[in-house]
Amino acid sequence: MKKIGVLVSGGGTNLQAILDAQTSGIITNGSVACVISSSPKAYALERAANAGVPGVCVRRKDYTSSEEFDAALLKVLQQYQVDIVVLAGFLCILGENIIRAYPNKILNVHPSLIPSFCGDGFYGLKVHEKALEYGVKVTGATVHFVNEVTDGGAIILQKAVAVEQGDTPEVLQKRVMHEAEHVILPQAVELLCADRLKVNGRKVELIENDEMI
Amino acid sequence: MKKIGVLVSGGGTNLQAILDAQTSGIITNGSVACVISSSPKAYALERAANAGVPGVCVRRKDYTSSEEFDAALLKVLQQYQVDIVVLAGFLCILGENIIRAYPNKILNVHPSLIPSFCGDGFYGLKVHEKALEYGVKVTGATVHFVNEVTDGGAIILQKAVAVEQGDTPEVLQKRVMHEAEHVILPQAVELLCADRLKVNGRKVELIENDEMI
Repeated sequence: MKKIGVLVSGGGTNLQAILDAQTSGIITNGSVACVISSSPKAYALERAANAGVPGVCVRRKDYTSSEEFDAALLKVLQQYQVDIVVLAGFLCILGENIIRAYPNKILNVHPSLIPSFCGDGFYGLKVHEKALEYGVKVTGATVHFVNEVTDGGAIILQKAVAVEQGDTPEVLQKRVMHEAEHVILPQAVELLCADRLKVNGRKVELIENDEMI
Repeated sequence: MKKIGVLVSGGGTNLQAILDAQTSGIITNGSVACVISSSPKAYALERAANAGVPGVCVRRKDYTSSEEFDAALLKVLQQYQVDIVVLAGFLCILGENIIRAYPNKILNVHPSLIPSFCGDGFYGLKVHEKALEYGVKVTGATVHFVNEVTDGGAIILQKAVAVEQGDTPEVLQKRVMHEAEHVILPQAVELLCADRLKVNGRKVELIENDEMI
């Protein structure tokens, strides 16, 4: 049973999707051991409390350097013996020390079909603004491993979502969250917890259950 | 009833999809008036002959400049009074003169979800090689208007296709052709022939039939 640490900065709907997936049995090989928020006001902390999960606030501005901030995050993750880290709308950049401490154990969800509309400066609503400006008819979400490059890690799961005529960034954001992010993030978490992901460079293969005997 | 000119260089499966869509009633507002091939050996010319459509070969190497090549293509298009031009695996770059002669009347189909895996150097099998190297789990096809930038015109239709474990570029190419290109290209041709596409910068809106009264 893997211990999952979820890092958040805001409302925490992706955290909720993971918590719900534990209840519904989609996630059976792991459970959320702690929620770390970069903001004390994040509603995600309330969601954690409602689920009986410890919530911790680690603010960037309480530390003089990003190294110290990383060390504080790492300390909390180690305190809760976290095996797997999930970035669920976490708006700070993770430092090298954390990435090295959890090789191929940190997941991020991004609200586009990477490599479209990703990289530095593409986060939150902006991703959907850019997609609509570009005029794409299909967008979606991606769950990927986190490495040193923003949105650059190997892709675990992707799901496409249709852009509808008249979509605003807000409407599209909600549809992508509901139809894609909340579906593939819990699936990817379960696959990682069950040791069913084989990483080979940029390619992530799914190990079938019957290959695991 | 619009007259369609189809430009090809190879096997012509997308040409066949358009011809079949005329027969099946998916395309009702246009018909293929001529097929222009950049190679005399293209099997697409046989498909044209089998459908009773005139086929013409215009080879780049028979002309000293790209301007002369363009002029030769334009002459054939005008000879057959073509209203709409479809690039269906046409491996030459269209010059400005043709693009200007057919503003928002030239379609291209590209075997990825643009803006992923497109632009100069991304054509044919290479697109799928790059997608597999990148490790995407979802790819697809795009039908877009042709402007001066390679794969840069406004997007008309897109369709997603799942990448399956163990896919080779060849297997993925076939799936994208069958599930996406052959579906959305005829649909886009019909929408353009029926004057149901409204272009606003990079955004293409679909005019509903009941708005056209």
